[in-house]
Amino acid sequence: MSREALQELRGQIDVINLKILELLNERARIASDIGKVQLELGTSFYDPQREAQMLQALELSNNGPFSNETIKALFREIFRATLALEEKEARTKILVQRKTEADKTIITLPDGTQIGNSHFQVIAGSCAVESFEQMDMVGAALAERGIKIMRGMAYKPRTSPYDFQGLGEPGLQIARQVANKYGMYVTSEIMDMSQIAMMSEYVDIFWIGARNMQNSFLLRALGQVKQPVILKRGLAATLEEWMYAAEYIVSSGNPNVILMERGIRTFERWTRNTLDISAVALIKLETHLPIIVDISHSAGRRDIAVPLARVAKASGADGMMVEVHPNPPVAMSDSKQQLSIPEFHAVMDVLEGVTV
Amino acid sequence: MSREALQELRGQIDVINLKILELLNERARIASDIGKVQLELGTSFYDPQREAQMLQALELSNNGPFSNETIKALFREIFRATLALEEKEARTKILVQRKTEADKTIITLPDGTQIGNSHFQVIAGSCAVESFEQMDMVGAALAERGIKIMRGMAYKPRTSPYDFQGLGEPGLQIARQVANKYGMYVTSEIMDMSQIAMMSEYVDIFWIGARNMQNSFLLRALGQVKQPVILKRGLAATLEEWMYAAEYIVSSGNPNVILMERGIRTFERWTRNTLDISAVALIKLETHLPIIVDISHSAGRRDIAVPLARVAKASGADGMMVEVHPNPPVAMSDSKQQLSIPEFHAVMDVLEGVTV
Amino acid sequence: MSREALQELRGQIDVINLKILELLNERARIASDIGKVQLELGTSFYDPQREAQMLQALELSNNGPFSNETIKALFREIFRATLALEEKEARTKILVQRKTEADKTIITLPDGTQIGNSHFQVIAGSCAVESFEQMDMVGAALAERGIKIMRGMAYKPRTSPYDFQGLGEPGLQIARQVANKYGMYVTSEIMDMSQIAMMSEYVDIFWIGARNMQNSFLLRALGQVKQPVILKRGLAATLEEWMYAAEYIVSSGNPNVILMERGIRTFERWTRNTLDISAVALIKLETHLPIIVDISHSAGRRDIAVPLARVAKASGADGMMVEVHPNPPVAMSDSKQQLSIPEFHAVMDVLEGVTV
Amino acid sequence: MSREALQELRGQIDVINLKILELLNERARIASDIGKVQLELGTSFYDPQREAQMLQALELSNNGPFSNETIKALFREIFRATLALEEKEARTKILVQRKTEADKTIITLPDGTQIGNSHFQVIAGSCAVESFEQMDMVGAALAERGIKIMRGMAYKPRTSPYDFQGLGEPGLQIARQVANKYGMYVTSEIMDMSQIAMMSEYVDIFWIGARNMQNSFLLRALGQVKQPVILKRGLAATLEEWMYAAEYIVSSGNPNVILMERGIRTFERWTRNTLDISAVALIKLETHLPIIVDISHSAGRRDIAVPLARVAKASGADGMMVEVHPNPPVAMSDSKQQLSIPEFHAVMDVLEGVTV
Repeated sequence: MSREALQELRGQIDVINLKILELLNERARIASDIGKVQLELGTSFYDPQREAQMLQALELSNNGPFSNETIKALFREIFRATLALEEKEARTKILVQRKTEADKTIITLPDGTQIGNSHFQVIAGSCAVESFEQMDMVGAALAERGIKIMRGMAYKPRTSPYDFQGLGEPGLQIARQVANKYGMYVTSEIMDMSQIAMMSEYVDIFWIGARNMQNSFLLRALGQVKQPVILKRGLAATLEEWMYAAEYIVSSGNPNVILMERGIRTFERWTRNTLDISAVALIKLETHLPIIVDISHSAGRRDIAVPLARVAKASGADGMMVEVHPNPPVAMSDSKQQLSIPEFHAVMDVLEGVTV
Repeated sequence: MSREALQELRGQIDVINLKILELLNERARIASDIGKVQLELGTSFYDPQREAQMLQALELSNNGPFSNETIKALFREIFRATLALEEKEARTKILVQRKTEADKTIITLPDGTQIGNSHFQVIAGSCAVESFEQMDMVGAALAERGIKIMRGMAYKPRTSPYDFQGLGEPGLQIARQVANKYGMYVTSEIMDMSQIAMMSEYVDIFWIGARNMQNSFLLRALGQVKQPVILKRGLAATLEEWMYAAEYIVSSGNPNVILMERGIRTFERWTRNTLDISAVALIKLETHLPIIVDISHSAGRRDIAVPLARVAKASGADGMMVEVHPNPPVAMSDSKQQLSIPEFHAVMDVLEGVTV
Repeated sequence: MSREALQELRGQIDVINLKILELLNERARIASDIGKVQLELGTSFYDPQREAQMLQALELSNNGPFSNETIKALFREIFRATLALEEKEARTKILVQRKTEADKTIITLPDGTQIGNSHFQVIAGSCAVESFEQMDMVGAALAERGIKIMRGMAYKPRTSPYDFQGLGEPGLQIARQVANKYGMYVTSEIMDMSQIAMMSEYVDIFWIGARNMQNSFLLRALGQVKQPVILKRGLAATLEEWMYAAEYIVSSGNPNVILMERGIRTFERWTRNTLDISAVALIKLETHLPIIVDISHSAGRRDIAVPLARVAKASGADGMMVEVHPNPPVAMSDSKQQLSIPEFHAVMDVLEGVTV
Repeated sequence: MSREALQELRGQIDVINLKILELLNERARIASDIGKVQLELGTSFYDPQREAQMLQALELSNNGPFSNETIKALFREIFRATLALEEKEARTKILVQRKTEADKTIITLPDGTQIGNSHFQVIAGSCAVESFEQMDMVGAALAERGIKIMRGMAYKPRTSPYDFQGLGEPGLQIARQVANKYGMYVTSEIMDMSQIAMMSEYVDIFWIGARNMQNSFLLRALGQVKQPVILKRGLAATLEEWMYAAEYIVSSGNPNVILMERGIRTFERWTRNTLDISAVALIKLETHLPIIVDISHSAGRRDIAVPLARVAKASGADGMMVEVHPNPPVAMSDSKQQLSIPEFHAVMDVLEGVTV
């Protein structure tokens, strides 16, 4: 007899499910009307005081078997879903979010070089600008491989105030000079929004480092420049926080944001950071922005550059970033992870063999 | 006019809220009846296939404005709440969970020594049994401070197979002998369930190390011994996983479980692990089990033992565990974190001054 | 015979040890002279090219049994030790480092309120300034407990650009007004160095948030203000990185830095962050700066505030920070972790009972 | 004049460097003789008491400028280097360590199927054995793609004792039957060494789960079986700990160990774990063992299986592991991450297109 009883009870559940469905949608329609009134009044959709009142009313009317805790938890989900609906309708949907399969941001530089189309774009150069000779040697090697975007870092964020902090503006001049000589673009890290005007004279692509990923003043300020912006992931930033950091820039007016995965801080010690390669797939799924893999800072060691370059390309990323120095052992920063010029050529050779 | 419109629309929402409330509870009552039938039939409450069918039916009937995704998410919450209700009613509530303010497990050893009452119980001793002389010197120091529970470790889980793995059964004999001499209890780590019978001859309190926290065969086997069991937190275990590991023991028949917080693995390098002191408060909130703070493994260094001992006592823990060795620099394991005997006395002196 | 052979061989080792010792110190004396010449020449002590040459020379002369790798590793240690000596002699020793047992920074505010002396200083207030009424209610409660330093946050760093970002300057005006009414000091977060002049009119203690811990431009700029600066630990910053961040401020001219531990990002989910209580002991060991424990952001939940307050006091910290709001459920940010006013009083009552 | 002074002083340093070099190697030769005597005497190379004496003697003779701390640190490095040399000479070198470029373990199954040669081996199957029908459907799909190694899990390590724990021996029977039908091998997780005899009747490749990675009793016991062993990385295990766990098995007699990277526990929430793809390159560099990438548990979600499969192949791994279920939404465990059969075919199609 039990099995029939089960069937009968399940039929009752099915009926109730549909009634709840109907009420939820009716509720959503009314909430949507409320949303329109709120837009007119200029008040926020999210009204915690009103929510508190509704929960109180439900608690008073609740006779179980669901506990007040459960009822409140379920209604909080309903409130959240409703809020999401209102926000969607009010066009405040996250701008960086990917809407369709085909939706993707492609950034085009003056000579037609693109980031975000199907070409795997390599960004390379020394950790820091040290001298013209060093930059020139690197520039020549990059040019040989057809690389169009060169690191030209003149401000280095360092752990200690006594470490080498970069050459400053003279370093930018060197970078510009070398880039011009080889027909390349310069990307350079900006540390504070006060540098925008000066750096704009030298830099083609601004670069926001991991430590500044959530510096909202800098993000908003770079939302108003005409150059594209590379936004590195913070060293312990979740993918969600990173997406929202990009949203600060895009919602301030600059749609040309390039994300750069550079490894996250974990307990593992054989690498400087842990390259989160799954991040590439998830960023592609959730946003329409291009993403680049930094194989130098993620590993912090040059001896696995070849497999990491293969992995970067296979991951579906739009490119990779790699550090190159004419003489890594004497580099003023990051000496363990910069490739020598022959090592750089070896990596580029291998990359050509990867098809996905 | 807008403000009145808002009031009117909100009134409609209020009515719908109450209708949904009523339907949810009606649904819960029927589900509860279904639960009873399932109990008779011996089938599981959780029936993913049935859930899949219900979601499909809802999708077919959904005309928006809520998307199918949202409707399915909301109903999944309803299913989950219903399942929780059924499980609760069927008495499968987690045994280690604290039910009332007063609910707490107090473990009483044969001479009346208690763990989990208001007394702050110190467990101490060397990292490993090395010799009778060493154990005797430590035993004498412990006895001087009235300590009743002594470490007597004869099996050491080590990273490398070439590291010192403990003296084995002869080590247990030494520990027993010294404990008997000073009227103390021996706690010792068990590594595999095959050791239960042999170790039971020497050991008063079994000890499950961090690496074995989720060894379900060992957990269940120790659910059937008469001795209390210390269960260390795994090095990357969440509090929830730790609670469930304790549940394996308790649900197998042994209610006398003592949790031991020993730090978690994080990126920080100045300590061996990061002592998660908030865990004490949360374990007290969520379970009725006693909890002890291991100030040795969490820090991995002896120079902060004094403040950590004060912190352990202030946290509301039922005691602390500390390693003591007659000559730490030559200890066969953990030499950086074991206290010398004078350092141990200093820590005990300080503890006496802490009132909370 | 073996044992005597062992003795004989060990004697030979002892002789060699002393010869190496002598050579190391002779080498250090010469290096120190080199350091003086370099100081005159204005060149850096660290000369990687010279190091590379020395290593090469050693490699050429090395006939084993030590491998070139080992020899280079040992000499790199010698180079590092020598460099450290030169730097020490050149007074570039880290300023925040604690030199003697008694060495500690005590910060004194105009009315004699001190941070860093033996008194446990409580800093409290709402997460953000929302209105005069809210701040006034909180201010009255703080005044009742003799609290002298009030949170007055008008710029909130938020994950999403669409979240409440603080009231801005009007918020600072409210904070100032309420603080004046109750005879308290205002501490407020600064997000960008461009805000210094404006904020200086309202703020008694600047506050650098976790996201800006390594914003070196901001750190250096706050090295030039007269107000003390609270420096929160970054969410995944090591203690070493945090010390160096403080060094940026102190070496730029402002000795009055207060460190604030606020939990680190780990895998644990029952707390928002993991309070790293060992950090207090280690910061006290390594630096002379005061340190405060933030019990609100570390836990992210108010229900364990009482034990965490006890722990903070027992840890040896110079104080704690706690968020208080007249009506936490409707707070515009951090609603889960702010204490209600009665909860705040309960925490303060408990604190009085803790002696260490 | 300074530049010449500098040259002169540097010349003196060069001479001292060579003298230290000579003494270090002389010291190493004597230590090596001591090592031989110790081998005869059967005593450990590592003698902390002797080291303590030597450090004390050095301290007594040290007149600076190097501090005692520095001298002791430098000599500790020398001791460590010497110890390493002795150990190397005594053949206790780690067995799993890769010695030459060409050195690699290739495991050959009875029909010639190999793991560790250049072929990218796919291991697949459901998370758990649930029924013959389910296994048969999966087996047919695997056979279609030429897969030779099938998951046949009958014991599931679960967080809660109330979760589905696997079918036990009947599950193994089903797995064996299906594998035989399709000419495949069964790999199955062993939870305790007491299961070896029984499981050996059904299982071709033993599998040690992440939670048991440091269960040294189980590791040693599996060092004595004839089947190959898959050893998953612990959820917070460093690469070094993982290598040593493999060494437990290999040094106990079983050279056929296959490592499986399955992601590590981090703060990121969009994936269940963080796939540490750099681990593949480093394991290849440091050991001669084959390594497989688990793309199911690392991600915990099926929607990024395609890019992760490409990444696994590009990383240089010897294969990958993927979970497949005829109806993932109703699977008894891991329903979010198992691929449906069509999704599995899509992944296999993509894999064929990857060349590296």
